[in-house]
Amino acid sequence: MNNSVIRYILGYILRIEAILLLLPTFVAVLYQEQSGFWYLFVAIICIVLGTILSWRKPQDFIFYLKEGSVATALSWILLSIFGALPFYLSGAIPSYTDALFETISGFTTTGASILSDVEALDHCHLIWRSFTHWIGGMGVLVFLLMIIPLSGGSHMNLMRAESPGPSVSKLKPKLKTTARILYLIYLSMTILEALLLLVGGMPLFDTLCTTFGTAGTGGFGIKNDSIGSYSPYLQWIVTIFMILFSINFNAYYYILYRNWRKAFHIEEIRYYILIISCAIIIIFINLLQTATNISDAFRHACFQVASIISSTGFSTVDFNTWSETSRTILVMLMFIGACAGSTGGGIKVSRIVILVKSLGKELASYIHPKLVRKINFEGKPVEHDVVRATNVYLVTFFLIFSASVFLISLEDQDLITNFTAVTTTINNIGPGLDGVGPTQNFGFFKPLTKYVLMFDMLAGRLELFPLLIFFHPTLWRELFTKRNKIKKEKGQKRSSVSKRS
Amino acid sequence: MNNSVIRYILGYILRIEAILLLLPTFVAVLYQEQSGFWYLFVAIICIVLGTILSWRKPQDFIFYLKEGSVATALSWILLSIFGALPFYLSGAIPSYTDALFETISGFTTTGASILSDVEALDHCHLIWRSFTHWIGGMGVLVFLLMIIPLSGGSHMNLMRAESPGPSVSKLKPKLKTTARILYLIYLSMTILEALLLLVGGMPLFDTLCTTFGTAGTGGFGIKNDSIGSYSPYLQWIVTIFMILFSINFNAYYYILYRNWRKAFHIEEIRYYILIISCAIIIIFINLLQTATNISDAFRHACFQVASIISSTGFSTVDFNTWSETSRTILVMLMFIGACAGSTGGGIKVSRIVILVKSLGKELASYIHPKLVRKINFEGKPVEHDVVRATNVYLVTFFLIFSASVFLISLEDQDLITNFTAVTTTINNIGPGLDGVGPTQNFGFFKPLTKYVLMFDMLAGRLELFPLLIFFHPTLWRELFTKRNKIKKEKGQKRSSVSKRS
Repeated sequence: MNNSVIRYILGYILRIEAILLLLPTFVAVLYQEQSGFWYLFVAIICIVLGTILSWRKPQDFIFYLKEGSVATALSWILLSIFGALPFYLSGAIPSYTDALFETISGFTTTGASILSDVEALDHCHLIWRSFTHWIGGMGVLVFLLMIIPLSGGSHMNLMRAESPGPSVSKLKPKLKTTARILYLIYLSMTILEALLLLVGGMPLFDTLCTTFGTAGTGGFGIKNDSIGSYSPYLQWIVTIFMILFSINFNAYYYILYRNWRKAFHIEEIRYYILIISCAIIIIFINLLQTATNISDAFRHACFQVASIISSTGFSTVDFNTWSETSRTILVMLMFIGACAGSTGGGIKVSRIVILVKSLGKELASYIHPKLVRKINFEGKPVEHDVVRATNVYLVTFFLIFSASVFLISLEDQDLITNFTAVTTTINNIGPGLDGVGPTQNFGFFKPLTKYVLMFDMLAGRLELFPLLIFFHPTLWRELFTKRNKIKKEKGQKRSSVSKRS
Repeated sequence: MNNSVIRYILGYILRIEAILLLLPTFVAVLYQEQSGFWYLFVAIICIVLGTILSWRKPQDFIFYLKEGSVATALSWILLSIFGALPFYLSGAIPSYTDALFETISGFTTTGASILSDVEALDHCHLIWRSFTHWIGGMGVLVFLLMIIPLSGGSHMNLMRAESPGPSVSKLKPKLKTTARILYLIYLSMTILEALLLLVGGMPLFDTLCTTFGTAGTGGFGIKNDSIGSYSPYLQWIVTIFMILFSINFNAYYYILYRNWRKAFHIEEIRYYILIISCAIIIIFINLLQTATNISDAFRHACFQVASIISSTGFSTVDFNTWSETSRTILVMLMFIGACAGSTGGGIKVSRIVILVKSLGKELASYIHPKLVRKINFEGKPVEHDVVRATNVYLVTFFLIFSASVFLISLEDQDLITNFTAVTTTINNIGPGLDGVGPTQNFGFFKPLTKYVLMFDMLAGRLELFPLLIFFHPTLWRELFTKRNKIKKEKGQKRSSVSKRS
């Protein structure tokens, strides 16, 4: 394994984090908050450590899937470990486990909090929490693609490890260009939402935090009732942008290049809109039975559906008190999740569509063994590799899911709390039901449970495999057995070269 | 499609059911119960209809996977439709939907009941309920293999459609012989259990019903507290036989032929015992915190774990009141299920083992792309086809599962009731938690929910695909479009022939 290139990347990551930490430091200066000192302090640690790590350039920049996975997993873990320090050092979150939970929840755009009273936090903490969403939304490693000159299909490996969805579509021949365009779209849409919120009379600080949370489909609120106390106009804006940020970014790319036909014919988005519409209709009808105001009921239905399926996790009402039908539908939306190629989490609509279609084909092939044709998705036949990878993904998902539910069930919370705690973290949503409902928080869990849920959040955000590979014993044996390492290194290189040829 | 052979098989099935219905008739005569008349009445209907259907021999006995699936699905549906009539006609179960639910629950060895007071039932009804478990345990179609001379790989197709597990292992070159041996083992073990229960002082009638329920891993009790009021000795016997009937029958086959080494080296059984032991230990430790009697706690832990993982569903205590940890573990056992090649339900241990192993291989292949080797199971490499089929099975399972939970959630019962109702029916167990816990029943559900759960029970018992194929629109188009039918028939035959060659 090319350890030096991983070290180099991690050094870069820390230096980037140092820069990112300057935003809360700046906010602290503005609001004259002493806790801001700790952001500066951690930023300095990051810059020093980062510079040391990336001082010596690696001999070669060869970089395969294995390196990609390790670099991704380690980067996200490192980002979180250092990102959690200011919360802990300043005393805002007295337990480091809790601080780490909050930070991982931020970077993975989950939005599950251990805090019972967010309004008591300093502004610098609030902006940092929301800012981690925005950073995590697009990912940091893809950003590195624009800086570090990696070779050996490495860009694709990094991007594949960090991007949500079954397959990364190259929008442009050069991935560097693709990454640049995606960041540009992300930034523009963030600015657009912020402007629309400001127009609606939201204070600047609230606007920044809310926009960061929406853009990354994160969901950390800065009020204890999340978005509930803002005006209907502001709630509608957030609703619309939660959906916009959870749509396949290819659509915006096509719009950017005026390819309207393609932009409005993305199959995944059509199914996504269909699912959202059905869910809203059923929940709206359900709410009407108890609602006093029809337009409120409709807005709440739209907001909660958009928030859950986009994996944001904001709320305008306590949907935990809704009817069981509505609750069940919300839980199902948690699993479905957003579109691939967006900032959203969950299993992803495209995976579900591919699975349902391939099941249909499977059945048809039993009836007419002659008709073995490939399924179509987005106007193209789906390769067997993709179907297979999607199957493996889902199976892996449920294995991790079951193992997590088992581990946290040892704590003897009730079944719905356990079940939805895992659902909401592995799908990067935020609130669950009952004990972890929108008015509750994750603070009461024991440390073991919190670490399991942290693993789930990272696994969900990184699409399972990078994290599993990182924790695979084979990899660790290799890292620590030097002799073995060098021997295998050579074999590895040979095989990879032969694979490419 | 070869419709005439399906008609012929269905005729046979009805004639077999007529014979089976004589047992409750006989019991009714013994206990001088008037409701027994209806069993005789339905038996006569079955014999008349069956004789008409199987009067004309089909021109050819060619029979492929498609015919196998349709024949299986239709047989089980027909068996249930007629099997439910005596309950309904005698007035024991006033609603036909309920009677059908009870009968499907019986034949599929689920054991989920709509009755709140089983002790009020006549003896003939009680024995018929339990007898359906025993019939459903081994399946009726495999029995037909010994009678009807089908051709075209048809036996394998029938057996594949009806047997639980990822792959049917041919114990003997001739499947007819395999089937005969399996029935022999089934019968001997049933007699052995009955003898051991009689020795323990259980009345003959109770012994028959309990043995039928255990052998088929069904779970209909004849007392309102299931097995709770019997002596510890009897409970232990039932515990042991629930596990014995849920073990891969290959083990008994090997024992029969004195191949001890093979019998005790079946990998699936070792994992099965491991899972059972872990579950018992955790639940036992959990029960100790509140238990007054250690040996009782241990017996209850063993009984409930054996009952749930073997998919029987008997109970000695109301495990719904257990701690959340224990409840969660029981729910997980519901999904895991029994061994393949047994009478038990669930996803099956071998599938889980294959999935976990192939995931491990998948991860290893990321780390060392060179080392792409097959996984081993039961001492043999697992073919890619089996891994693929297992993946497809699990994905299909979760799609049906989600669709079912969605459909029954429209009734607005609580989430745990809905979730475990689907879990317990699709895995053919019986009791779930909360609203469908061991002291509750399924009677309160609305008809739509009941039909969804009936579908789940059949889907679970027939390993999903036969039922899905049966409900696939392509098949129905074919059945009703005559011109189309004949045309496709020819193509079908050609392709099947070319496939075989």
